[in-house]
Amino acid sequence: MPETETSRPNLDAIRAAARRIEPHVHRTPVLTCEAIDEVAGCEVFLKCENLQKVGAFKARGASNAVFSLTDAEAEHGVVTHSSGNHAQALAWAAGRRGIPAHIVMPTNAPMVKKNAVLGYGGIVHDCEPTLESRLEVCREVAEETGGTVIPPYDDDRVIAGQGTIGLELLGQVPDLDAIVVPVGGGGMIAGIAICAKALSPRLEILGVEPEVVDDAARSRLSGRIESHAGDPNRTIADGLRTTLGERTFPVIRELVDDIITVPESEIRQGLRLVMERAKLVIEPSAAVGIAATRSTAFRAKGYQRVGIVLCGGNLDLDALPSLL
Amino acid sequence: MPETETSRPNLDAIRAAARRIEPHVHRTPVLTCEAIDEVAGCEVFLKCENLQKVGAFKARGASNAVFSLTDAEAEHGVVTHSSGNHAQALAWAAGRRGIPAHIVMPTNAPMVKKNAVLGYGGIVHDCEPTLESRLEVCREVAEETGGTVIPPYDDDRVIAGQGTIGLELLGQVPDLDAIVVPVGGGGMIAGIAICAKALSPRLEILGVEPEVVDDAARSRLSGRIESHAGDPNRTIADGLRTTLGERTFPVIRELVDDIITVPESEIRQGLRLVMERAKLVIEPSAAVGIAATRSTAFRAKGYQRVGIVLCGGNLDLDALPSLL
Repeated sequence: MPETETSRPNLDAIRAAARRIEPHVHRTPVLTCEAIDEVAGCEVFLKCENLQKVGAFKARGASNAVFSLTDAEAEHGVVTHSSGNHAQALAWAAGRRGIPAHIVMPTNAPMVKKNAVLGYGGIVHDCEPTLESRLEVCREVAEETGGTVIPPYDDDRVIAGQGTIGLELLGQVPDLDAIVVPVGGGGMIAGIAICAKALSPRLEILGVEPEVVDDAARSRLSGRIESHAGDPNRTIADGLRTTLGERTFPVIRELVDDIITVPESEIRQGLRLVMERAKLVIEPSAAVGIAATRSTAFRAKGYQRVGIVLCGGNLDLDALPSLL
Repeated sequence: MPETETSRPNLDAIRAAARRIEPHVHRTPVLTCEAIDEVAGCEVFLKCENLQKVGAFKARGASNAVFSLTDAEAEHGVVTHSSGNHAQALAWAAGRRGIPAHIVMPTNAPMVKKNAVLGYGGIVHDCEPTLESRLEVCREVAEETGGTVIPPYDDDRVIAGQGTIGLELLGQVPDLDAIVVPVGGGGMIAGIAICAKALSPRLEILGVEPEVVDDAARSRLSGRIESHAGDPNRTIADGLRTTLGERTFPVIRELVDDIITVPESEIRQGLRLVMERAKLVIEPSAAVGIAATRSTAFRAKGYQRVGIVLCGGNLDLDALPSLL
């Protein structure tokens, strides 16, 4: 489908996104930690999106989407269905523009997540805990309000926004051999891959996902969007339980060099290592990049300098003992 | 005692320390967090010494002391008695110079602390868990080895090293109204006060300590070194249980504008706030600065822009639930 190919976000779209969101998001720091270098067997540069607004990279895509709207569009607000970081990020971004954010969440979503959205000024709409109900309520709310639907990852504005991570990282750290990126729906890795391959074609892009939600690895092998091998609830990396989308998969198939899957035990050890030695609070999904460096597949690459995206820091401290 | 007054470290000594330790320590980042600004009622700039080498500001003083030694002195190594961050920092700094570090620790010190010192290449010497035994074993080891004793805070080389925090912070953030510094033995606040008052006399320096270890507040009132009101083991801020020293107290008496004491409940809330919202792992001693911003004494100052030193990040994750 040449039309889809040519209409995907490119480096210019990512540069435009960077200018658009610059007044709103943090240029997150890149930190290093000798103990992590030792574990990884190479120099590691941690891109700290856990220190991003709303505690996750999702602030980038959401604010790019919200500030891309015309005034006429924006007036009616934005709508999404999500119970994760995208919900908070969209509520926050809409608040920055002074427009309503309608967030459709299942009735069984944890109160802490609803409260986070409400805390950023979002309007929560209940739905049943099924994908059908989510989509239906989302469509109803969009129709009633005239609001623009901003999906969590399968959206060019969102992909371009997440791509600004790559733009920043390449400016902050010269001569990287690879960037390691957690993969859920694929919006972040698609944006980063587009940016990095345009600026530095020999730089490799590695996706990482938990073994039990290995849809990206399976999709890359089969050439079409696949589901997970296991029950998504079996991974502690709750941000990575989704599957790839129609907009993200073609980019990943073309530009991502490899997808590494990591066992839960390594994700837990990675979480502990980052918190104990790098002194950063991260959520379990952000630990998969550290876990990847322990794999045979990673070791075989022989990289010297690697960027790892710590994608978020929204950890439930009270649940921490069960995650270590 | 004019001699003592004139021989204390000055701005030049701190600048020399900065040059000396620059190849070894991190220039730690300054981070901001809207949620903390809201709690504090002013703009807060977090000086992240939790991200320092060995996870605490102690790396600065220890490396300044170790690299101040002549080759002839250094050859015999360094000696200290400490079971806290100074022990790890001295072992680390000595390792950087390739000389032995002899650390005297009580037999009842936690294995995790002994292992941390051993991990940095330090040599652990056992003593009884009394101050008398610590001092005696320390003296014996120094005599046997010819090593130089580097105390944890009551030492001009250490004070000058800790003062480099102030030098960096003033370069990183213009127009601060105050710097808030946790006070244990007083080495850090003495160094920062000397530096800040020399460079920006109207900038105020506030010390903070837990209510149950209020020796600095009491000493400031009485004009001589006092002990604590309560049992030091009753505070979770274990790094602040010591009392002021002969070298640090005169500096604090002259240059520190106020000492604020904070209750344990506020220290716990500060710890949670920094971890949940700023996404930084800190040790309880580093939470007292956040706690101070909630006090009536702090509010009465009407500061607009405040630096807070997050002094360390060596938190026992497995003990975290009992600290929140």
